[in-house]
Amino acid sequence: MTRKALGIDFGGTSVKIGLVDESGRILEETSFATADAAVQAKWLGRVESIAADWTAKGHSLAGIGVGVPGFTDFSRGFIYNLTNVPGWSSVPLAGIMRKRFGRPVYVDNDVNAMALGEYIHGAGKGLNHVFFATLGTGVGGALVVNGKIYRGAYSMAGEIGHVPILMNGRKTPEGRGGLETYVGNRQIVKCALSALRRGRKSAITDLAKGDLEQITPKVIASAAAKGDKLAVEIMDKTADCLATAFASVTYLLQPEAIIVGGGVAGSGAVLFEPLRRHLAERLHKYFAERIKIIPAVLGAKAGIIGSAMLAFQN
Amino acid sequence: MTRKALGIDFGGTSVKIGLVDESGRILEETSFATADAAVQAKWLGRVESIAADWTAKGHSLAGIGVGVPGFTDFSRGFIYNLTNVPGWSSVPLAGIMRKRFGRPVYVDNDVNAMALGEYIHGAGKGLNHVFFATLGTGVGGALVVNGKIYRGAYSMAGEIGHVPILMNGRKTPEGRGGLETYVGNRQIVKCALSALRRGRKSAITDLAKGDLEQITPKVIASAAAKGDKLAVEIMDKTADCLATAFASVTYLLQPEAIIVGGGVAGSGAVLFEPLRRHLAERLHKYFAERIKIIPAVLGAKAGIIGSAMLAFQN
Repeated sequence: MTRKALGIDFGGTSVKIGLVDESGRILEETSFATADAAVQAKWLGRVESIAADWTAKGHSLAGIGVGVPGFTDFSRGFIYNLTNVPGWSSVPLAGIMRKRFGRPVYVDNDVNAMALGEYIHGAGKGLNHVFFATLGTGVGGALVVNGKIYRGAYSMAGEIGHVPILMNGRKTPEGRGGLETYVGNRQIVKCALSALRRGRKSAITDLAKGDLEQITPKVIASAAAKGDKLAVEIMDKTADCLATAFASVTYLLQPEAIIVGGGVAGSGAVLFEPLRRHLAERLHKYFAERIKIIPAVLGAKAGIIGSAMLAFQN
Repeated sequence: MTRKALGIDFGGTSVKIGLVDESGRILEETSFATADAAVQAKWLGRVESIAADWTAKGHSLAGIGVGVPGFTDFSRGFIYNLTNVPGWSSVPLAGIMRKRFGRPVYVDNDVNAMALGEYIHGAGKGLNHVFFATLGTGVGGALVVNGKIYRGAYSMAGEIGHVPILMNGRKTPEGRGGLETYVGNRQIVKCALSALRRGRKSAITDLAKGDLEQITPKVIASAAAKGDKLAVEIMDKTADCLATAFASVTYLLQPEAIIVGGGVAGSGAVLFEPLRRHLAERLHKYFAERIKIIPAVLGAKAGIIGSAMLAFQN
């Protein structure tokens, strides 16, 4: 009989919960708004009642995995803090949940959980050695080697978003010229806005129905797919910035593949064509021939599936 | 009884051989000029006669480790090619030596071997998770985690020399703006030469006895140690370039320490003070507080000791 685990994808907007079997199939699935249950006691109550509903249907739980949007110490199942959810600093969540549910509980950074999901049941199937990057407001990353997340000495390895691509670039609390200061969602949109405000004509304006507030990286990617010159330029620049950090990843870690997930990653060739091209320019031929750049396939389910996998593999 | 292994540090200039015990002590040591025995048959003959001398003294060999200056596949003990030694392309060296010596033989990249030496018996003692960088004509690197070299998917991980620090930097066959195009020995010297030729006054000229051909990174470091302004500037710039790549290493790999070896690394505070300072500027406080930058301690012995360790640990 295949085992089942609870996978919890704790996001800033919603908490997605699934009952997942070892083959990665989601048997049950629900969610609640983070804002409705951000207080710990309420959050635990919601999770408990959902789990109770599912066990009442005859499902048994082998364990629970939780992916959270912030700094964690996986070995202790400890949350240092969550970037966008107040009230979750210094929480020994795995310990608390273990007591309450009487099951093994594992708590990890959400990007690590997604990476594990894609590695085991998504775009990484059949590969041993994979780097996962997710594009959004920030840029997250994780390395999976021989089925295990590579955590580094302090449980926070894989932080590709802060990898410098320009040593004399913008200063931030994380350093200087870090990748996500160029390709975070806001930066991509800003790039379009400043060009449009300088008077550039572009299909982006039409796609946003004339309302510049409506411009998102997806809108820009759609315009690029239609051949819009400005949008193609922005996607090309974004891809080249990513390629620079991916060159660092490739030279240092030499994975078989880099799996790219998150918002813009859904845009297909308008991102992946220039990304592969620029990366090849930025690598020695020997490395360029070996590295694969592949889109993530699990989409929004990666977090639930990957979180559940944390429970199975530990 | 402590086991002994042959550690061979196969360099472009000389081949250094030692008989090393498990505690890292070198019991016997010799070397021959690479140019005298670059042909494989001759090289093997020299190694064999040295090993025979030592076994005749009553030493027994548990195994042999070889560190070579070029591309290898560790798992097969295979040399793809050696950058500065012709006639060593596509050589299954471990297999050839295993037959000839009747002992286990391991062949690795020289930087990996040095890293292992420093990790087990040098600056890395007591640490679990270390990145090693060596400065010279090029810049090499290797990661050691829980006592094992992290090799990546194709046995060539840790290539810090090609990590981009400036996305719009110099183009080379390895990409664009790679670290070693800024801090390789030749680039450091070039930097001094161009300033001197522009008329900058500096103690570097005196230390080189007025002969610009005599300027080396060590001469520049000596001038910096005396407080020479130009030399201090060059060391500071070198340190900042290194710090940029070290920030990438820290964010992606999160080692406990980065051990810095090779020529300039012997210069002490004139390199390490600005290196630590710039790295702290280039990292989030959380990471900056945790990463240690430490000088290598085994010097020219790292290769012999580390190569022997390859034999013990495999």
